[in-house]
Amino acid sequence: MEEYILLIDTEDAKGLVYNISKVLFANNLNIEQNAEYVDPDTKKFFMRSIISGKVSHNILLKELKEVLPSSAQIRLNKKEKKDVVILATKEFHVLGDLLIRYIAGELNANIKAVIANHNHLQDLVEKFNIPFTCISAEGLNREEHEDKMIAKINEYEPELIVLAKYMRILTSKFVETFPKKVLNIHHSFLPAFIGANPYKQAHERGVKIIGATAHYVTNDLDEGPIVFQDVVRVDHSYSWEDMRNAGRNVEKIVLSNAFELLLNDRVFVHGNKTVIL
Amino acid sequence: MEEYILLIDTEDAKGLVYNISKVLFANNLNIEQNAEYVDPDTKKFFMRSIISGKVSHNILLKELKEVLPSSAQIRLNKKEKKDVVILATKEFHVLGDLLIRYIAGELNANIKAVIANHNHLQDLVEKFNIPFTCISAEGLNREEHEDKMIAKINEYEPELIVLAKYMRILTSKFVETFPKKVLNIHHSFLPAFIGANPYKQAHERGVKIIGATAHYVTNDLDEGPIVFQDVVRVDHSYSWEDMRNAGRNVEKIVLSNAFELLLNDRVFVHGNKTVIL
Amino acid sequence: MEEYILLIDTEDAKGLVYNISKVLFANNLNIEQNAEYVDPDTKKFFMRSIISGKVSHNILLKELKEVLPSSAQIRLNKKEKKDVVILATKEFHVLGDLLIRYIAGELNANIKAVIANHNHLQDLVEKFNIPFTCISAEGLNREEHEDKMIAKINEYEPELIVLAKYMRILTSKFVETFPKKVLNIHHSFLPAFIGANPYKQAHERGVKIIGATAHYVTNDLDEGPIVFQDVVRVDHSYSWEDMRNAGRNVEKIVLSNAFELLLNDRVFVHGNKTVIL
Amino acid sequence: MEEYILLIDTEDAKGLVYNISKVLFANNLNIEQNAEYVDPDTKKFFMRSIISGKVSHNILLKELKEVLPSSAQIRLNKKEKKDVVILATKEFHVLGDLLIRYIAGELNANIKAVIANHNHLQDLVEKFNIPFTCISAEGLNREEHEDKMIAKINEYEPELIVLAKYMRILTSKFVETFPKKVLNIHHSFLPAFIGANPYKQAHERGVKIIGATAHYVTNDLDEGPIVFQDVVRVDHSYSWEDMRNAGRNVEKIVLSNAFELLLNDRVFVHGNKTVIL
Repeated sequence: MEEYILLIDTEDAKGLVYNISKVLFANNLNIEQNAEYVDPDTKKFFMRSIISGKVSHNILLKELKEVLPSSAQIRLNKKEKKDVVILATKEFHVLGDLLIRYIAGELNANIKAVIANHNHLQDLVEKFNIPFTCISAEGLNREEHEDKMIAKINEYEPELIVLAKYMRILTSKFVETFPKKVLNIHHSFLPAFIGANPYKQAHERGVKIIGATAHYVTNDLDEGPIVFQDVVRVDHSYSWEDMRNAGRNVEKIVLSNAFELLLNDRVFVHGNKTVIL
Repeated sequence: MEEYILLIDTEDAKGLVYNISKVLFANNLNIEQNAEYVDPDTKKFFMRSIISGKVSHNILLKELKEVLPSSAQIRLNKKEKKDVVILATKEFHVLGDLLIRYIAGELNANIKAVIANHNHLQDLVEKFNIPFTCISAEGLNREEHEDKMIAKINEYEPELIVLAKYMRILTSKFVETFPKKVLNIHHSFLPAFIGANPYKQAHERGVKIIGATAHYVTNDLDEGPIVFQDVVRVDHSYSWEDMRNAGRNVEKIVLSNAFELLLNDRVFVHGNKTVIL
Repeated sequence: MEEYILLIDTEDAKGLVYNISKVLFANNLNIEQNAEYVDPDTKKFFMRSIISGKVSHNILLKELKEVLPSSAQIRLNKKEKKDVVILATKEFHVLGDLLIRYIAGELNANIKAVIANHNHLQDLVEKFNIPFTCISAEGLNREEHEDKMIAKINEYEPELIVLAKYMRILTSKFVETFPKKVLNIHHSFLPAFIGANPYKQAHERGVKIIGATAHYVTNDLDEGPIVFQDVVRVDHSYSWEDMRNAGRNVEKIVLSNAFELLLNDRVFVHGNKTVIL
Repeated sequence: MEEYILLIDTEDAKGLVYNISKVLFANNLNIEQNAEYVDPDTKKFFMRSIISGKVSHNILLKELKEVLPSSAQIRLNKKEKKDVVILATKEFHVLGDLLIRYIAGELNANIKAVIANHNHLQDLVEKFNIPFTCISAEGLNREEHEDKMIAKINEYEPELIVLAKYMRILTSKFVETFPKKVLNIHHSFLPAFIGANPYKQAHERGVKIIGATAHYVTNDLDEGPIVFQDVVRVDHSYSWEDMRNAGRNVEKIVLSNAFELLLNDRVFVHGNKTVIL
């Protein structure tokens, strides 16, 4: 029995659930799981259903379109692994965590490649028989470097791009090339400590809790829709390096939780926020 | 515009969402919020909808019954405050927290009375103009005492009974008199430290985290369906009294979170577990 | 047997622990608890000892001064309740929590008075037989209002002033009148969402965790040394009012934890940070 | 400048801090960090100091012995990496996490070998150039298998043995061969769900929070002194496999936190508890 994930994102209207479930029922499909949310401010309707049965992809989409507002976004994804490219720089912990999950079979993804702007992680990645490409930024301006990155990424046609501590700022060209496809891990509890070296900032401020934030990348640095956050307690005895070390545990858990949400089609982007069903 | 909460609890069947939403649509009702859950082990279907419009209570129930399996439990509650009776013994913190929330207007409840087996809390309760009754257990056997408690509770016809650190064990007669209506706070992270003085047990065991558990009361002591739990870190420097003090903060937050879930009709009892929608 | 808390805050030097413990030993005093911390960046030494025995206050201070650097701050407090004044505005939850703890005997404090700029909380406070004064700011400029507040506070000679959601900005005159004596609760996880209506800001930003921060008040709004923080998870379904309600639970726990640390002389102010021993 | 960690564990007595600091001062040693704890129930004194200077190991130990009660345990460890052997069975996540930390240089340890009772993890371990030995239990009784394990472990003379999800019960012979040297990760929030398949037990009980516990191994299964614990929220929608997956994140963080505490000599075993300084 095949399983599909149906994702609908539209303006709210009377009878939406009725009309959608009527189409599914008429197509002899079972609803295995279902969740809806209507945002009270924007009157947007979000629905995620796991359906099973014999799905005629085009017919189902056509019939759903007929009963939904014309602006509705409808996605119908087979429940299967997504192709992913990972970008990194020099740090082991987040990438390493993804690689271990990958070979343990925990990730619902095919990691097609790791692309980095340094070669520090090459040995690690190749241990796992995953293609590694180093595209150094040396001697290149930002646009030239990114063009090379984009070209390389496009070779793999990824559905998702994960920035596993990729420490370069992305231009709007990059962001617009992969809309709603780029997931980043920021090493602070956003919106606290935007920008460079958040652990030094946190140490300076004397906070008692630090955190990490996984978010979609948009044109505004560290301002994209937040997918997942977590925190850990620290105290006066932590140097900024101690905070960084404690934070690494949080970073990898936060990124992998957010990644799993995306791999399972559970996240809708809603303006600058996310709806997670 | 009136709002109702519709709660359906039934064996799963094909087309349930379609059939329910059809009835709502035909009755010209809006679905303001909707959540469903199907348990994969027991194949039970749970649905909670907030609906608005002009509801003809009996007609709607009748029409829903016609499209649902005969074993379906259907509840249709107007969105309004529930009548509640609180039982207590001697401790201030949980009861006091409920009273402050009550006069601050934070609770979706009418507190009809506080009934205790000691009079330590009388002054506190009466400050808030709430009837207080002390039913001492002195000189009475368990059944005699409970009969008096039950009689007094019944005077107030509560929809919910909250045990705010009521430190007596309840008989099955009591439990069966108020089925699925009694919420308790246990001062441990169940199922750890069942029974008497869990903080002493936790201290003895040297745990690094303690917690509290709000659960429905059933015939098995500390074994009822869990509604909410939370925890707090402790360390070797905590005496058992320090643990108790730290635990009090958790107890009151846990009970009030669970209480709010019940007041808002968000909890289904499912065997010895809860489904929270 | 009397117990004292000895607090030493000085530049680090060789043999400090030896020299201090020599004086205590020579005075026939027992060290019941002891904690030290040396900040690696500033080379400042902090020590908190609970000592028991027959203490000759002046002699002990004199002998300690002789073995410590001339800039050393030495405090020797008898272990006893501190006099406290609470400032508030209109909200029940934080003040109510303190009052319940107070009559339950959980607080190591004498609450001398509650002073507010509105009278909404008068009934509540007077239930607990605590003096309540309303000093309205109506028709007064900031300085005039604060002068009245300062005069009233001074009548009670408090060792600590707790802002239990006192929603007015304080001038530097106020801050300097009560140096290192004013504890505030800010309703966000600082430094995120400084300023007005942090819950609206958090809702707007789409964060997945909100928090609260207890800090000493300094001249810079929401920038004083942080004493305690805590957080709670939220999701897309929370309106800003839902966040505020969830946040209230955090606010009261955070303030009361920080308050207890101050009442037990466990907090050193170290530049714009705190050291907690 | 060399750094040493001095660990003292003794019955409490008057002037201990004074006498110890006098010896350190006379030996011209600096106290870089210092923490003490006296257990109020057992009257045991624990002290951990990081000292710097020119240490004459034997002289210092001799002089400390002279001023301490005869039952005192004194350890003086150079601040350096400890030799460690890891035992495992089939699961990737905890072992993989340790390996990534290891090659990232995050661990204060030399991993001398991984020994397992199955060969599932051989490829992974050998990617990291660490010796892997499979000692199958097939056809052996418990004692025979353990004898082989003990012999192999002894070849590496480890200071610590970490059970990274080693799924066999250890005999008292094993435990007594390596006293206070074996750290285990148990996949529940002990003492809840002792024994086999705690995630199934947790699912059955309907808990809302699950956890993991790192503890020293003693003769009583899952009853040894607890070093570190952490938890994560779950809800009714989690199957037991979902709980296991969520729990894996907690297991690896808990084990690595506990491991780091042991590697840095921060843990004293105190009866069936731990004191962490």
